[in-house]
Amino acid sequence: MAEKKTVLSGMRPTGPLHLGHLAGALRNWLQLQDQYQCFYTIVPWHALSSEYQNSKSIKGFTYEYALGWLSFGLDPEKSVLFVQSEVKEHAELHLLLSMIIPLPWLQRVPTFKEAQREVTDRDLNTYGFLGYPVLQTADIVIYKANYVPVGEDQAFHLELAREIVRKFNSLFKPVFPEPQILLTEVPKLAGTDGRKMSNSYGNTINLDDSPDMIRKKIAPMKTDTRRKRKTDPGEPDDCPVFTLHKAFVEEEKREYLAQGCRTAGIGCLECKNVVIDYINELLSPYRDKKRKYEKDPKLVWDILEEGNKKARKVAQETMEEVRAAIGI
Amino acid sequence: MAEKKTVLSGMRPTGPLHLGHLAGALRNWLQLQDQYQCFYTIVPWHALSSEYQNSKSIKGFTYEYALGWLSFGLDPEKSVLFVQSEVKEHAELHLLLSMIIPLPWLQRVPTFKEAQREVTDRDLNTYGFLGYPVLQTADIVIYKANYVPVGEDQAFHLELAREIVRKFNSLFKPVFPEPQILLTEVPKLAGTDGRKMSNSYGNTINLDDSPDMIRKKIAPMKTDTRRKRKTDPGEPDDCPVFTLHKAFVEEEKREYLAQGCRTAGIGCLECKNVVIDYINELLSPYRDKKRKYEKDPKLVWDILEEGNKKARKVAQETMEEVRAAIGI
Repeated sequence: MAEKKTVLSGMRPTGPLHLGHLAGALRNWLQLQDQYQCFYTIVPWHALSSEYQNSKSIKGFTYEYALGWLSFGLDPEKSVLFVQSEVKEHAELHLLLSMIIPLPWLQRVPTFKEAQREVTDRDLNTYGFLGYPVLQTADIVIYKANYVPVGEDQAFHLELAREIVRKFNSLFKPVFPEPQILLTEVPKLAGTDGRKMSNSYGNTINLDDSPDMIRKKIAPMKTDTRRKRKTDPGEPDDCPVFTLHKAFVEEEKREYLAQGCRTAGIGCLECKNVVIDYINELLSPYRDKKRKYEKDPKLVWDILEEGNKKARKVAQETMEEVRAAIGI
Repeated sequence: MAEKKTVLSGMRPTGPLHLGHLAGALRNWLQLQDQYQCFYTIVPWHALSSEYQNSKSIKGFTYEYALGWLSFGLDPEKSVLFVQSEVKEHAELHLLLSMIIPLPWLQRVPTFKEAQREVTDRDLNTYGFLGYPVLQTADIVIYKANYVPVGEDQAFHLELAREIVRKFNSLFKPVFPEPQILLTEVPKLAGTDGRKMSNSYGNTINLDDSPDMIRKKIAPMKTDTRRKRKTDPGEPDDCPVFTLHKAFVEEEKREYLAQGCRTAGIGCLECKNVVIDYINELLSPYRDKKRKYEKDPKLVWDILEEGNKKARKVAQETMEEVRAAIGI
């Protein structure tokens, strides 16, 4: 019997869980649990790299994420659910890897360059933010992960992680496998203002929003600008709301709605009501399960601590090998 | 009774202990032991930042340094003698500090710029080497050190450490005192080739050299070029060998020799013999004590492990405060 391959993925606890987390990660993570040995981690240190001026919010979101993951069906019996910053070995490996990484490898990372250009409300030209991919590599390889489920936009980070692994393995000893991308469809969801759904824009539809709140957020969203009146035909591919349909409405139904839009056969509100119902149905078991977990907040921390222990054990074993390979 | 102030200093285990270590640090460290609570640390992670291609030598030098420190009289009952890389909390603090440090603070560090210009046999344009002052700051402040005994050439690093402390304290909570420089006379010693004595030049006179070897190394050293013949007067301030006299020969005797040089009253070999004798006398108790420690190599590791434990306890307490201040 072949051993299960290892998968690692994580989330930065920087804002509430929203539909983007669900469509881009959680739904996929749920499916990977049986086929792989999965490590799913909440990463406060990564949160800190951009939120150091707002660090007090990180712990609360760490709890919220664990609660949300469990409520969505991630299973601590199958997967290791843990908090990165509780496994200090990540920091040690980050430091050791830092010694062999040429600065230009980091300076050319597109997300770093993009942040320097676009984030103006705080200083992200920091040593820690530049080292983001180093810490990410440590997070992955300390569990000798074979696969990392990410979208195309993260392909560069993973290529860099492989480059770092190759350098470590050739300088010292072949301790780490090269992590491969497990390419995941990460649908681009529009938020309530039509821009990409993201906590940094404050335009998210959250997993904890009530059915009524979800309706209130989606109903007034702008649709394809061609549909000024109900009798004007529209194009679903140009409609922000339809990005939600693509992620959450089953294909047959979605085709029917697209057809209705293009022929002005249905109105936008009718179309919105369909996706609202689908989302609420999807979240219904989540809400039920969450109510149970909320009754016992200690349980969530206990489950995380169990996960931290499991993760620590693996990380410590890897670090023994790492130190021996380097010789310190 | 006022509590003793805390001192921290360290050495990079990158080559044998030599007279430079003795004159610039050890002799001074010995004197600080009673007045201060001293933390003296061997720093393998710093060694790795420049020696990652030669990492296998670090562990041996770590042992040699501990052996040498003890033999020279550093007292594990008075001071905490420990190995930085055995106190993992340094790596965690390094990572946390990295998040708040603007890159330009590090890019403008003179030693970083100098290494980029002058070191050509290996790539020091690495993420870890740029972060050297971050790790150094973590090493210092994790013990809330008040003083760091260093020479003028390290003043910039300490100014940077204070800048980092101020930023941390104002962003989060005032956890750290600002470490002050305990300005130390660090004599500039010439090595056997007349250049600055340094392991990187392979021109060192080592604490473990036999009396005979010390004679063999110093006797052929070039002196002031004016003294072509014994009858030519010379200038001690232009003589590489006389840098050793300044560090190791008592003032009265040294004045006498300087006078003899300027008046061509003594020959260079006679002058060299004086400093050779002084050095050998200084090292005599060191050699005796070392022989005792060498009989029981385990003892040295045990003493270090005791020191590691003491250091870890303080570091862990500080990290509790740090995490609480940040809120993660």
